[in-house]
Amino acid sequence: MHLISSSRDTTRLQSIMRITRAISTVHDLHRLITLLASETSKVLNVERSTVFLYNRKTDELWSYVAEGESNEIRFSADQGIAGSVFRTEKTMILHDVSVDERFNKEIDNTTGFITRNMITAPIINPSDHCIGVFQVINKEGGNFRDDDAEFLEIVAAEAAITIENVRLLESRKRMFDSLIKALVISIEARDPLTAGHSFDVTFLAGKIAEYLKLDQDTSEAIYYAALLHDYGKIAVPDSILKKPGAISKEEFSILRKHVLHTRIILSPIEFEERLEKVPVFASQHHERIDGQGYPDGLKGNQISIGGRIIAVADVFEALTAKRHYREPFSHGKTLNILVEGIDTQFDRNAVLALRQYFIDIGKIKQEEVPLPEKAGNAF
Amino acid sequence: MHLISSSRDTTRLQSIMRITRAISTVHDLHRLITLLASETSKVLNVERSTVFLYNRKTDELWSYVAEGESNEIRFSADQGIAGSVFRTEKTMILHDVSVDERFNKEIDNTTGFITRNMITAPIINPSDHCIGVFQVINKEGGNFRDDDAEFLEIVAAEAAITIENVRLLESRKRMFDSLIKALVISIEARDPLTAGHSFDVTFLAGKIAEYLKLDQDTSEAIYYAALLHDYGKIAVPDSILKKPGAISKEEFSILRKHVLHTRIILSPIEFEERLEKVPVFASQHHERIDGQGYPDGLKGNQISIGGRIIAVADVFEALTAKRHYREPFSHGKTLNILVEGIDTQFDRNAVLALRQYFIDIGKIKQEEVPLPEKAGNAF
Repeated sequence: MHLISSSRDTTRLQSIMRITRAISTVHDLHRLITLLASETSKVLNVERSTVFLYNRKTDELWSYVAEGESNEIRFSADQGIAGSVFRTEKTMILHDVSVDERFNKEIDNTTGFITRNMITAPIINPSDHCIGVFQVINKEGGNFRDDDAEFLEIVAAEAAITIENVRLLESRKRMFDSLIKALVISIEARDPLTAGHSFDVTFLAGKIAEYLKLDQDTSEAIYYAALLHDYGKIAVPDSILKKPGAISKEEFSILRKHVLHTRIILSPIEFEERLEKVPVFASQHHERIDGQGYPDGLKGNQISIGGRIIAVADVFEALTAKRHYREPFSHGKTLNILVEGIDTQFDRNAVLALRQYFIDIGKIKQEEVPLPEKAGNAF
Repeated sequence: MHLISSSRDTTRLQSIMRITRAISTVHDLHRLITLLASETSKVLNVERSTVFLYNRKTDELWSYVAEGESNEIRFSADQGIAGSVFRTEKTMILHDVSVDERFNKEIDNTTGFITRNMITAPIINPSDHCIGVFQVINKEGGNFRDDDAEFLEIVAAEAAITIENVRLLESRKRMFDSLIKALVISIEARDPLTAGHSFDVTFLAGKIAEYLKLDQDTSEAIYYAALLHDYGKIAVPDSILKKPGAISKEEFSILRKHVLHTRIILSPIEFEERLEKVPVFASQHHERIDGQGYPDGLKGNQISIGGRIIAVADVFEALTAKRHYREPFSHGKTLNILVEGIDTQFDRNAVLALRQYFIDIGKIKQEEVPLPEKAGNAF
């Protein structure tokens, strides 16, 4: 007896080690919980493991991971053993489900699987709310033991920590993202003519980044920088920003300062390390490859990749948008202007990427925007 | 041998269960790591455990938790066994430190503690960076074994996950907070006369919340709401916002709309659940207890606690600030105006709390701001 328990606990300890290592190295939540389920099935010697999570909106439990089942299982959170454990928040061992009236036969009827016995443990988050249940079904060669339930509780606790951390991080990211969107909308509301501009530029900059196969961190920094690139316009007075006719040289020099304001305003923000280039990206969208841009007159690769991409997206969006003094330019006409500006105003690869994107979605035909020989053809 | 191993692994499995439970229930990081250290000392039967974390700025390792030591231990990250494990990211068992020249005797010399043997495991975060080391010192009655090192590695991995999660959450919070501050500064920059107003209101609202002993979530929601309460002014044109003289009735009705804009702009932000009242708190700071306020003409407790507190802080700040048409009011004069407005314009408890705060810091004497009988004396 003791010898069996010895090897069992040694195996379990090693399993916990694998699970802990997985939690600290696997970043995809679904993959991680799948791994926890299969590790648990192996160690407890059961036919399958299932993790149900609670959906507050529908008051249902649904199968986040269900070994052996490709279809989602979903039922009211007051049904069956899972529902009972979810409500009582107490682990339950059932040696024979056929004699327990709480057992919900419907699921077996639907899936064709036959449940004999099971342990169901609640998944309780750090704020002490039950967020789901962890279930192991059909012990091979014998009955479940109390220490099986204990092991399942450890795994359920590890799952709870992980799920909750991912949720907290995601909700904090949503809060940050929605705050940025709210402020972009509020700033653009000052000038109805350009409302939506920053979102369109962000979309196009994202497409260019995708075509240039930039890494995720850089792409995400470009996303925020594109949303915020005109933020500095908050420091430009209404009298200049909203002036309907031509603006004077002096007024133009004030308008140009918006990129400096963008940099000054964004620089104190404590971006996460991977996003630390946002203020630089955002404030370089009026630089030009030939060094004739502003505010710093940087040349070529002195301009950050983000600045070069946003510059192209920005001009494309401005030209294809309606202004009160002219109709919007067509995609073809605008892209020809961008191609013409390659290596003087614009980054070659960024322009070619945008052109290719509009060809791919059928907005323009290749021959509408011929490439000058020097441009090469990266795509 | 097997019997010993049996009971050992059972004990260790139970210990991991306690650690996992602690991680999912203890919210204070330092307390949690202290708990991990003492659990580890008990299970591995060692004299003490120490957790060193890496400080990138100083390139040092420092004792985040050091059992039996009240003083912080701090040394260059290339020194000693800890430094060696930190650099190689490999666990190291030392059966006799006296024969290892890498061992840094200085620390024992300083602390008076005598190290005989130790295991040091790297703490490696999910991005695969070593962020510190976990050390157990002086095994009682015998030598360290390989499975002691394995156990320490599990605990170090659990510590890594926890530390990293807290750090990520904190850095995301810093990013959010600094973004809000940046936007408040940028909006206030439009009108230099009121620059700093929102930060001062936030400070005072925080003091009132503290004196009223509000819970942490409500206080935090008030913090953000106070910072953002005038955000809607972004929708007020320069011509009204910056007008030096008296403004017309029509202009005033546009200016008043800033609270509605605050609500409209903030409402789509996906605040975390505990902060979901921020838009309501922020947009009710011009409501009055007697229902004569705006935008909704709410009465008494129909106005949220946040709205009532920010209203008091807002008026206090406005009256004690300099305006181009008058000198700042004194604290005493301003508080007398607030006390006079109790139950008509202002919430009684919020006013009494602010008065008490200024008495406590010695800014006013109690008798300078006498209380009307009806006001009671909550403080």
